[in-house]
Amino acid sequence: MQAKFINALQGCNLQAPPVWFMRQAGRHLASYRALRDKYSFLELCHNPDFIAKVTLLPLENYQVDAAILFSDILVILEAVGLGLHFEEKLGPIIDRPIASVKDINELPTHIDISKLQYVAEGIKALKPRLKVPLIGFCGAPFTVASYMIEGKSSRDLKKTKRWMLEDAQSFHLLLKKIADWSISYLKMQIVAGVDAIQIFDSWANTLAYNQFCEFSCDYIAYIIEALRSTDIPTIAFCRGSSVFASQLATIKPTCISLDWNCNITDIRKQVPRSIALQGNLDPSILYAPQAVIKKEVKDLLNKMAGDGGFIFNLGHGIPPDVSEEAVKTVVECIKGGS
Amino acid sequence: MQAKFINALQGCNLQAPPVWFMRQAGRHLASYRALRDKYSFLELCHNPDFIAKVTLLPLENYQVDAAILFSDILVILEAVGLGLHFEEKLGPIIDRPIASVKDINELPTHIDISKLQYVAEGIKALKPRLKVPLIGFCGAPFTVASYMIEGKSSRDLKKTKRWMLEDAQSFHLLLKKIADWSISYLKMQIVAGVDAIQIFDSWANTLAYNQFCEFSCDYIAYIIEALRSTDIPTIAFCRGSSVFASQLATIKPTCISLDWNCNITDIRKQVPRSIALQGNLDPSILYAPQAVIKKEVKDLLNKMAGDGGFIFNLGHGIPPDVSEEAVKTVVECIKGGS
Repeated sequence: MQAKFINALQGCNLQAPPVWFMRQAGRHLASYRALRDKYSFLELCHNPDFIAKVTLLPLENYQVDAAILFSDILVILEAVGLGLHFEEKLGPIIDRPIASVKDINELPTHIDISKLQYVAEGIKALKPRLKVPLIGFCGAPFTVASYMIEGKSSRDLKKTKRWMLEDAQSFHLLLKKIADWSISYLKMQIVAGVDAIQIFDSWANTLAYNQFCEFSCDYIAYIIEALRSTDIPTIAFCRGSSVFASQLATIKPTCISLDWNCNITDIRKQVPRSIALQGNLDPSILYAPQAVIKKEVKDLLNKMAGDGGFIFNLGHGIPPDVSEEAVKTVVECIKGGS
Repeated sequence: MQAKFINALQGCNLQAPPVWFMRQAGRHLASYRALRDKYSFLELCHNPDFIAKVTLLPLENYQVDAAILFSDILVILEAVGLGLHFEEKLGPIIDRPIASVKDINELPTHIDISKLQYVAEGIKALKPRLKVPLIGFCGAPFTVASYMIEGKSSRDLKKTKRWMLEDAQSFHLLLKKIADWSISYLKMQIVAGVDAIQIFDSWANTLAYNQFCEFSCDYIAYIIEALRSTDIPTIAFCRGSSVFASQLATIKPTCISLDWNCNITDIRKQVPRSIALQGNLDPSILYAPQAVIKKEVKDLLNKMAGDGGFIFNLGHGIPPDVSEEAVKTVVECIKGGS
């Protein structure tokens, strides 16, 4: 029997919607925090056994219908020699950020994918132990470019947007290189065994509509097209998808993952049934009392009742300080336990 | 002859659209920075002569079609005894933030508006020296509540949203009090002489759709209804208006001010011509080379050509580090100078 998650991606799920969570293997889990007390984030990311172990952690707690590979969208930057480390509170730091057109020109056109072999090994170690589909992923070129230019997380992406506006040509060159690396990286993940791919454009919400079309969406489309022949389902995740969903629909991903600003019913009117919809629950809901969580989950279930192409998820990752109890409440509510 | 800005608010402007900028009297102006070298932000806000002087500063540089009162959405919190100061880099700090339901209960139901008399005096000092309409303003209850609870600027409004989700009843009580204070404050501004009102919901973009309806939009509606008998035009500004515009249209402000994510042409299809539209240019465009600025301005002008209810503006305030030259380029491009 085909997994419910795959059915929903194909728009033909007849049961309660499948559910998984972005960042389901993260700090909110006591089991994950215990591991992180002993190992750094990158130590876990670099080790195939840990990749397998951490990916499986949430499945011990919750009856989720998909697993997402434990990794980070920025490990690809290590493989092209930019260096990466993580600092407490600051998050990712790129050791050698991009500061000139020369820097972009010197970036390799092709990625040496053997440097990310540990990811493929993690996937292979994981697959036999997994009863649900496995989602692989990469960052979208715009979001990865923003980290390469800012050198770290940034609220407004000021340097990135200045670059984009001052010299669109070199910015496009950068996006194209990242897109080509990402395609190689995703193909490696597919060969190793992932069952679907999600592309994360976490910072697309900083863009104006025409900028989104030119600098974000076109490169997500380029990646999706390159994967089309593999028949792997693709999920396009954007912060800002509440505004950009109809544009995203034109590039025909298998599924669009929505943030939490929009009313999903309105979006379904813009996005044809041939494309699945995922997400839309405000992650903050996980801070609410049980009764409020249940009400919000049921409201979303009611809105999408009868829609065979709906995948339950949050609009963004699970915040690190929510309780496991809250996540459990969501899953049980969907599974009809309460 | 009625001012072009008022014509556009009424949907009947036949010429090039009027233009003004949020934060046009701010750090990007050398003349403003020179004043700030001598006086603190609050010293300028508290003094009627300075209010008049600073409000007029951008009109010395640019041919804008409206002035916006120099003040801050949080001075209202001084008047209800919460204390306010500004710290370099951090921005506003509320000295006594709200931390319990008791704190909310103890807040006054009515504001002692005489404590904001300096704003009325500033407006009166200003009006005779002004050849264009003057926009008064307040913060929307949700945004003001967020500062009261967070005590400062916050990226994700975690405390605020937790409160909202854990105890909606007391959160509504807080929003109602702020809305009533705001109505008194805006009526004072109207009596003193402002020609239009803008309500700023700078943090509405953190909300899910149903949360926006319940905790943000309903209170903007309440304020707008309370001002309806004064015949003053009202502009509803929300970060998130790209998603929330059709909901905002149902509460019938005179004008909706858009952020920069959406394609304004799409929004015009959702918002009837009886409601004016303002904004939508990405503030980052001001960092771009002249040719790019001109192209972006002309694109927006073309999209709204023949729409008598369009007011040119950015999607948010002018960033502090853009050049006056860039702002001048925008204005001249609209006025047909280039």
